[in-house]
Amino acid sequence: MNIIFNSIGIIHSPFKTVEKMPIQTSAGKNIKAEIKIYPEYENGLSDIEGFSHLYIIFHMNMSINYKLKVIPFLDTVERGIFATRSPARPNPIGLSLVELISVKKNILNIRGVDMLDGSPVLDIKPFVPEFETYDSIRIGWFEGKTEKAMNILSDGRFK
Amino acid sequence: MNIIFNSIGIIHSPFKTVEKMPIQTSAGKNIKAEIKIYPEYENGLSDIEGFSHLYIIFHMNMSINYKLKVIPFLDTVERGIFATRSPARPNPIGLSLVELISVKKNILNIRGVDMLDGSPVLDIKPFVPEFETYDSIRIGWFEGKTEKAMNILSDGRFK
Repeated sequence: MNIIFNSIGIIHSPFKTVEKMPIQTSAGKNIKAEIKIYPEYENGLSDIEGFSHLYIIFHMNMSINYKLKVIPFLDTVERGIFATRSPARPNPIGLSLVELISVKKNILNIRGVDMLDGSPVLDIKPFVPEFETYDSIRIGWFEGKTEKAMNILSDGRFK
Repeated sequence: MNIIFNSIGIIHSPFKTVEKMPIQTSAGKNIKAEIKIYPEYENGLSDIEGFSHLYIIFHMNMSINYKLKVIPFLDTVERGIFATRSPARPNPIGLSLVELISVKKNILNIRGVDMLDGSPVLDIKPFVPEFETYDSIRIGWFEGKTEKAMNILSDGRFK
């Protein structure tokens, strides 16, 4: 069953190609970008300036073919796609938690970017940590590997 | 520009109608549900059992009309839709952080549910808190209101 969405805006980021892009927002922490929301949705941005962090849900439109098993950037063995953050997903939906620097009309200035220039934006949600309560966390195969994400850049493997 | 996705599975939850559903996963913390991933995507679930928490990205297919300004469940005045978690979004994409209890073949048993029964699943991502670093947080109009989310249930306002 097809599910049809419309882009509500576009991401302008310094990353024109997948190669050498940070692989997580934490690694792209100091990198700024701009989200241009199309004017017809501008009224939906009211009150957003009160939030320091936003979830950006976007279309990873450069990721054309999906694979159910991938070797992630942080590993050397194949993992199920849903146990990874790799872009080669059946529905290439990106999820990034970014810092909101400022809002001017329909433009959001953000920091913390692992998004390709030109990516269509699907949705924006305010980040409210109180709603995401959890006690003990297990991070599966990422255990012991997360620090590496700060130093590894993307390559062309998922194009 | 239309963006087309396909459902990769379906959510079976105790909530058959929007009315009286928890409004956040934190409020639905003890409520169990099942995600059935369609068999053709089952291989993508490898290694997922290592994670305690998952992001579920789903289609809020009961939310048909969007509004750019809404009165959220936790407030009494209108807010821009992108500064809320309301379902009446231009692209009705749900994002829930849930606890993974167990995996059996293509079935995920989860806990922490604010999702309607029958919602189509778009994507599943492992939750890795190390990737979501942030320092000071501002939560805008939610300030002082988040505790109420534990006691308020959904109603029909966004149908």
